[in-house]
Amino acid sequence: MFMEENRPIDALNNSKGKRILLKLKNGTEISGTLKAQDLHLNMWLADVELKRSEEITKYKDMLIRGDTILYVVP
Amino acid sequence: MFMEENRPIDALNNSKGKRILLKLKNGTEISGTLKAQDLHLNMWLADVELKRSEEITKYKDMLIRGDTILYVVP
Amino acid sequence: MFMEENRPIDALNNSKGKRILLKLKNGTEISGTLKAQDLHLNMWLADVELKRSEEITKYKDMLIRGDTILYVVP
Amino acid sequence: MFMEENRPIDALNNSKGKRILLKLKNGTEISGTLKAQDLHLNMWLADVELKRSEEITKYKDMLIRGDTILYVVP
Amino acid sequence: MFMEENRPIDALNNSKGKRILLKLKNGTEISGTLKAQDLHLNMWLADVELKRSEEITKYKDMLIRGDTILYVVP
Amino acid sequence: MFMEENRPIDALNNSKGKRILLKLKNGTEISGTLKAQDLHLNMWLADVELKRSEEITKYKDMLIRGDTILYVVP
Amino acid sequence: MFMEENRPIDALNNSKGKRILLKLKNGTEISGTLKAQDLHLNMWLADVELKRSEEITKYKDMLIRGDTILYVVP
Repeated sequence: MFMEENRPIDALNNSKGKRILLKLKNGTEISGTLKAQDLHLNMWLADVELKRSEEITKYKDMLIRGDTILYVVP
Repeated sequence: MFMEENRPIDALNNSKGKRILLKLKNGTEISGTLKAQDLHLNMWLADVELKRSEEITKYKDMLIRGDTILYVVP
Repeated sequence: MFMEENRPIDALNNSKGKRILLKLKNGTEISGTLKAQDLHLNMWLADVELKRSEEITKYKDMLIRGDTILYVVP
Repeated sequence: MFMEENRPIDALNNSKGKRILLKLKNGTEISGTLKAQDLHLNMWLADVELKRSEEITKYKDMLIRGDTILYVVP
Repeated sequence: MFMEENRPIDALNNSKGKRILLKLKNGTEISGTLKAQDLHLNMWLADVELKRSEEITKYKDMLIRGDTILYVVP
Repeated sequence: MFMEENRPIDALNNSKGKRILLKLKNGTEISGTLKAQDLHLNMWLADVELKRSEEITKYKDMLIRGDTILYVVP
Repeated sequence: MFMEENRPIDALNNSKGKRILLKLKNGTEISGTLKAQDLHLNMWLADVELKRSEEITKYKDMLIRGDTILYVVP
């Protein structure tokens, strides 16, 4: 169903507490559980996996600046 | 017909629920069904195909930051 | 004739409904019929020809982000 | 004579209707007759010569985004 | 436990006086004790270790501009 | 003598009518007589010498965009 | 001692009249005596040493644009 009154950021509303994928402008991919976001797309993720050049690093929590994000996959 | 009172973003008004194509500043092409957009050109697409260097990846939903967009083809 | 009270964007006022040429910061050239523009130089063009590295692609409509534009030739 | 109350953009006040030279951040040089400018240094030039890599192109009118400008020579 | 009213920057609230890790956009890694932060993610760290290309430099105090930060690991 | 109430831009107050040196972000060096500046560090210089890759060009007047400046030497 | 009410820029309050080190985004290092700073991290330094590619240049005074700064070491 398509709701005309939605804002783009509403795509994340159902993702709180669920896993999302972030693609950063420098190519890095970050997946984690969404704990909080704001209008600048700053995001707080938990249980994070960061993937860069096929190397994966894990972090318990991470705060990502919104201006580094290319897109978000809920 | 040409309407002088249109704003550029109005080009997308008839595209809600339809397929559009985004060209990002880094060359990536993203096509999907437009679910929502705002004045910063942040966009929420569904049934997404992302094409980069001839490789295609599919996503159910995607939120794209407007500042990464070069142009939009309705 | 030179009118001192003009604003730079007024150069486009007589171009609505006519062909204009955009040069983007990444070198791409886009020509089309101007349907709408705003103060950020976001533009809505129709009957678009996009030229990049001597390759031409045609689109019926296009919304171009103003911050990607280098200059506009009315 | 030096006037302490001048603003930098006032350097262009006496240039309306006269030839000026713009140097863009990408190295392009643009000369033309100044028809209008604003506080963002957006400029409308007439009888334009654009020089890039020793190649010169001529345009009747041009609107240049201020954020692409490095400096202006009145 | 997941609190829906959190803001992303709240991820740092429990980190004051504790060690955090910053990844900068140029690849540099900076770890230190968080003394203060603001909404732009400007940060004041103490007992700093800066790592770039496997070389480590130590500083007693450091003020980092928020716009250079990619992400923060509490 | 050190005055605690100074703002950084006050470093230029005694430079009006005197020679200053600008270093631009692209490496270009510009020296000239300061005629006017504003809070964005936009500057109007007279009797300008522009030095790039050891080549010097002279201009009677120049308006420089503040956002291209790295530092200013009074 | 850790004071929760500090702002990051307060890290510089005790540095007025003392030597500080700036690292710029282009890799240049600038050290000098802090005479004034503002909220954008624009800084006025005296008795400046600028180091780039192992070459050192000295200046009596310098105004540095805050947006070119990576970090500051008090």
